[in-house]
Amino acid sequence: MLRMKITVCREAHFNSAHRLHNPNWDEERNKTIFGKCNNPNYHGHNYDLIVKVTGDIDEETGYVMDTKVLKDLIEERVIECFDHKNLNLDTEEFKNLNPTAENIAKIIYEKLRGGIQKDLALRITLYETRRNYVEYGE
Amino acid sequence: MLRMKITVCREAHFNSAHRLHNPNWDEERNKTIFGKCNNPNYHGHNYDLIVKVTGDIDEETGYVMDTKVLKDLIEERVIECFDHKNLNLDTEEFKNLNPTAENIAKIIYEKLRGGIQKDLALRITLYETRRNYVEYGE
Amino acid sequence: MLRMKITVCREAHFNSAHRLHNPNWDEERNKTIFGKCNNPNYHGHNYDLIVKVTGDIDEETGYVMDTKVLKDLIEERVIECFDHKNLNLDTEEFKNLNPTAENIAKIIYEKLRGGIQKDLALRITLYETRRNYVEYGE
Amino acid sequence: MLRMKITVCREAHFNSAHRLHNPNWDEERNKTIFGKCNNPNYHGHNYDLIVKVTGDIDEETGYVMDTKVLKDLIEERVIECFDHKNLNLDTEEFKNLNPTAENIAKIIYEKLRGGIQKDLALRITLYETRRNYVEYGE
Amino acid sequence: MLRMKITVCREAHFNSAHRLHNPNWDEERNKTIFGKCNNPNYHGHNYDLIVKVTGDIDEETGYVMDTKVLKDLIEERVIECFDHKNLNLDTEEFKNLNPTAENIAKIIYEKLRGGIQKDLALRITLYETRRNYVEYGE
Amino acid sequence: MLRMKITVCREAHFNSAHRLHNPNWDEERNKTIFGKCNNPNYHGHNYDLIVKVTGDIDEETGYVMDTKVLKDLIEERVIECFDHKNLNLDTEEFKNLNPTAENIAKIIYEKLRGGIQKDLALRITLYETRRNYVEYGE
Repeated sequence: MLRMKITVCREAHFNSAHRLHNPNWDEERNKTIFGKCNNPNYHGHNYDLIVKVTGDIDEETGYVMDTKVLKDLIEERVIECFDHKNLNLDTEEFKNLNPTAENIAKIIYEKLRGGIQKDLALRITLYETRRNYVEYGE
Repeated sequence: MLRMKITVCREAHFNSAHRLHNPNWDEERNKTIFGKCNNPNYHGHNYDLIVKVTGDIDEETGYVMDTKVLKDLIEERVIECFDHKNLNLDTEEFKNLNPTAENIAKIIYEKLRGGIQKDLALRITLYETRRNYVEYGE
Repeated sequence: MLRMKITVCREAHFNSAHRLHNPNWDEERNKTIFGKCNNPNYHGHNYDLIVKVTGDIDEETGYVMDTKVLKDLIEERVIECFDHKNLNLDTEEFKNLNPTAENIAKIIYEKLRGGIQKDLALRITLYETRRNYVEYGE
Repeated sequence: MLRMKITVCREAHFNSAHRLHNPNWDEERNKTIFGKCNNPNYHGHNYDLIVKVTGDIDEETGYVMDTKVLKDLIEERVIECFDHKNLNLDTEEFKNLNPTAENIAKIIYEKLRGGIQKDLALRITLYETRRNYVEYGE
Repeated sequence: MLRMKITVCREAHFNSAHRLHNPNWDEERNKTIFGKCNNPNYHGHNYDLIVKVTGDIDEETGYVMDTKVLKDLIEERVIECFDHKNLNLDTEEFKNLNPTAENIAKIIYEKLRGGIQKDLALRITLYETRRNYVEYGE
Repeated sequence: MLRMKITVCREAHFNSAHRLHNPNWDEERNKTIFGKCNNPNYHGHNYDLIVKVTGDIDEETGYVMDTKVLKDLIEERVIECFDHKNLNLDTEEFKNLNPTAENIAKIIYEKLRGGIQKDLALRITLYETRRNYVEYGE
């Protein structure tokens, strides 16, 4: 039988304020494109994050990657930076980058990629609300 | 058989920024009590709201209260006021009231109570996160 | 310590077609009150049902009521009657009763009440959609 | 770094009646194959729909596709056609096509495909019940 | 306006092995009553626990009870004792008490009651599976 | 139009006890790697299983595969073997294989593969908890 890859998935959560805004546009264009998400006083979300790591099963442990290790990595590199923060004001990453769900997922991917073995694939799912979410990665 | 009351429940959602803060306390005491919820730049939540109305079934309609009417009332009196808003900065209700889940639930109760017939009981459930929620009302 | 009652809850599901209609009203009034729920060709729902039974814990079994017995009772008296049925056309109960969520919950209560010991309280929760549900019983 | 695609996902809901039936078969064969789903008086479901659109992030907006635009497209092309309808009787699409979850997903794909830019991939997930669902698309 | 009580609710989780068994009964009666839950080698569950505390809102904090304090209390008195344990073998509480959902809820109530102010009411909801759960308390 | 494959998905559940352990390691190494999952008296989970089958839609039935057939296959080959069992003690498959989520998913894949037509792809998703899950298959 062909040796298929297996994926382990770990869910985490953070609660942040943000606003969508492009500083190169005037106020009117920002309002037209981003609507109520452009509110200058910010609004917020409970972000649900799923991190997926794909590779081979280690024969000694039966693990692709120890999910306790993955949980701690997510905690340290993502939750501590973004939880109970204002993404636009309190983080370096979104000082000059619009914190859309797409861009947040991409930044989370980049923050985690270095902490995971190179031969493992990484994929991010980020729920902004129960009805809106994005997927990014290998 | 005894005539028992029946309850109709309607769920709605809004996304807001807030911070917990007591202006009568100094900064240190605010940090001790409210922790990271005291972040001066705000954080945010997807609030899940359940509104419960209890009364008798109307024999002609088979309804306690038309849930379309209830949905519109929630939309008009709660969602339009709080969705994509900063509760501390953008609303009258929380200018001088700490926007804890408890106080938000109480305010929502008061905003809806006048729009619902007096002989119907009203009860509010408000989820701040999947793991933290409050219940208030008759 | 005071002897408090305990409640056991069992969830079940059924999928049915229905329409809301009052035969004593003309077509226009039916449309005004029931809107798209009045569609003469029917629409349908996945109903999620929660049955709650409250009483004392039996010291020998550690049960209020065996949930396998409760599961079979729900299966036999509710699911077999309503699942994959048209409530208006295929059931006796709604030949002359408007199948609103309120009335369906009441009928389910009556169908189950006789199968459960008199000293146990019975309460029904019925979800018509994730956002609309009703509660009925002791 | 390699430029990876990103996917935005939007959930929507509709409630419909349907029956499974192949007009080229006799009644007995229909009953054998489709069981209680063949009930001539119809049954129904709350369909949960997830629409996934994959492409590059637009640098100006930070979006792959504005989810408000996606939401309106789903509303107009899917929800207005199927919600509170009898799929077999009230829609053109299923007059001569058996409304299995597979076929409904395929039709939804076709109805949406024309409204979405050609360089964006489209994928449909359709839940018929919490336990049964299908996936279709690029 | 009448001063209504408010309820704060906190969710937690633990994963345990258990078996249902009455040592005063012979093997056959245990099998008849408890079925596959009587398996001598144990089976297990992800228990979802909701703790509800009811009282007045403190005017200074806007809290009924600080949910961080409640979270730590649940962690210390329940999760550390039951998580990743065999309830029958690894805990004092169920050495001589059948670990039905009813009895587990009652024990959790008793373990938490002493850590919560006397003027606050306490209520426990315990999910053994998504479809089976119990409620206990004031 | 290109003929795309479609995937049907079916969810099922089982409740089992297990422990993680490598018999080639000493006790200390087992504790270091597997932590509280190494508890010699076992702990347990509600496993949520999603089975995905991908292929073409049969023109006569409108099905990829009859989900009733898939449901029965899962029931017979997986649920009857693992539900209310101790995976380490009561099953042949995990006598000499560590029952991590990864290995359980792989075994479920192998148990189902023979019962599904060769031209259909098979993929397994297995939730150990709401926050930890794995994916395996074609």
